Amino acid sequence: MGKTYKAAMVVIGNEILSGRTQDQNISYIARKMVESGVVLAEVRVVPDIEKVIVKTIRDLKKKMDYVFTSGGIGPTHDDITAQSVSKVFRVALETNDEAFQILMDHYGEDEFTHARQKMAKTPVGAKLIPNPVSAAPGFIMENVYVMAGVPAIFQAMVDDVAVNLKGGAVIHSRTVPSRFAESRIAEALEEIQNKFPMVDIGSYPYFKDGELGVNVVLRFSDEVVLSQAVMDVEIMISALEDQGAGD
Amino acid sequence: MGKTYKAAMVVIGNEILSGRTQDQNISYIARKMVESGVVLAEVRVVPDIEKVIVKTIRDLKKKMDYVFTSGGIGPTHDDITAQSVSKVFRVALETNDEAFQILMDHYGEDEFTHARQKMAKTPVGAKLIPNPVSAAPGFIMENVYVMAGVPAIFQAMVDDVAVNLKGGAVIHSRTVPSRFAESRIAEALEEIQNKFPMVDIGSYPYFKDGELGVNVVLRFSDEVVLSQAVMDVEIMISALEDQGAGD
Repeated sequence: MGKTYKAAMVVIGNEILSGRTQDQNISYIARKMVESGVVLAEVRVVPDIEKVIVKTIRDLKKKMDYVFTSGGIGPTHDDITAQSVSKVFRVALETNDEAFQILMDHYGEDEFTHARQKMAKTPVGAKLIPNPVSAAPGFIMENVYVMAGVPAIFQAMVDDVAVNLKGGAVIHSRTVPSRFAESRIAEALEEIQNKFPMVDIGSYPYFKDGELGVNVVLRFSDEVVLSQAVMDVEIMISALEDQGAGD
Repeated sequence: MGKTYKAAMVVIGNEILSGRTQDQNISYIARKMVESGVVLAEVRVVPDIEKVIVKTIRDLKKKMDYVFTSGGIGPTHDDITAQSVSKVFRVALETNDEAFQILMDHYGEDEFTHARQKMAKTPVGAKLIPNPVSAAPGFIMENVYVMAGVPAIFQAMVDDVAVNLKGGAVIHSRTVPSRFAESRIAEALEEIQNKFPMVDIGSYPYFKDGELGVNVVLRFSDEVVLSQAVMDVEIMISALEDQGAGD
């Protein structure tokens, strides 16, 4: 077993906390981290308040290998992520020449207004993350990755940075569906968990359109061991089906 | 201005952190808090790890008026929320007579298995939250509200507890849509923000199906002041439209 790489995601946005917007970025980065062999260990959704953003990022960047943020890097007064991150690292927020040039090329000199020039500002020492959708870049400071909140842009930025992340062994995942109530399989599942203590076995009940069931999800880096555990779950579920114990 | 009531939500679930499940509970509770006059100040998504759950709830219950949790109260080995909350409050986890009776009535004596009896356990002193969908109750310990993760059940539980929450003034919200890029309106919007410092003005850009735009959202408890600010934003946007400055 090698090192486990851990990441946290910080969603910066009053629009999520007010229920106005349904977040789509958490599930996107979660899936990308699985592909990259990085464990998404925590997500925090915080409001557009500088001291909260600074404290949250400062706490997490010490505990985690990677911290990803989404939101608050646009041109308006409520976009305070870049200035917050400059305070996290105790460096100045300055016009980044490369970002300035990218935005100048995108907008043209006449349209590159004062408000838009705000988007060229990064903490000193930042490395840019390209934005193929609307030009204004994200940036990286040490292990903190600052990205846009608009899902199309966020996803493009995550795709860009994910290829260069150092991760551990990729965790494989297998799902075994069943039409039983979770409580029907609980004891047998615990026995399988005890037999395969290294495999992460989760059971996720659902209740949808009047139908009750549970998906058993098994996760582990070694596919052979994982397949053995999956087989045990499948055998357990068909034995229950033979008993006619479905709901 | 009266007291501001603040809440945090703790989503307990590896299935969200692995990207397997798209969370639906955050936006639901967020909207309910707005209706209740409670500010949803933070959301954390944490894994099914007892010490993380205990530390997270312990931290948040001191800082917040209310802490809501979702997930991990089912019958399987990975359902560890009730035992975690008993550790938060340093009390025993015991069979709750009322919960036991509810589950016994629901399942009948023969079907009320050992695994299902786990769902009758709560920290000593807990008050139950009814579950009209699948019987197994949530519970309240002081300012911590422990609810199910399955959205249909979570929503029913939130609806039940929300009516008894003490909240401050209800914050009204108005949205002004515009077909401009965010950077077009940034300076004028900042002026309006300076004129109405008490109104929370956010701008939420979107880029969808090739269309660019921004929704300006204004929030405040006083509807008269809010309407004045909304009018200023509408006037600003129509002036821009007259200039033909759309994208």
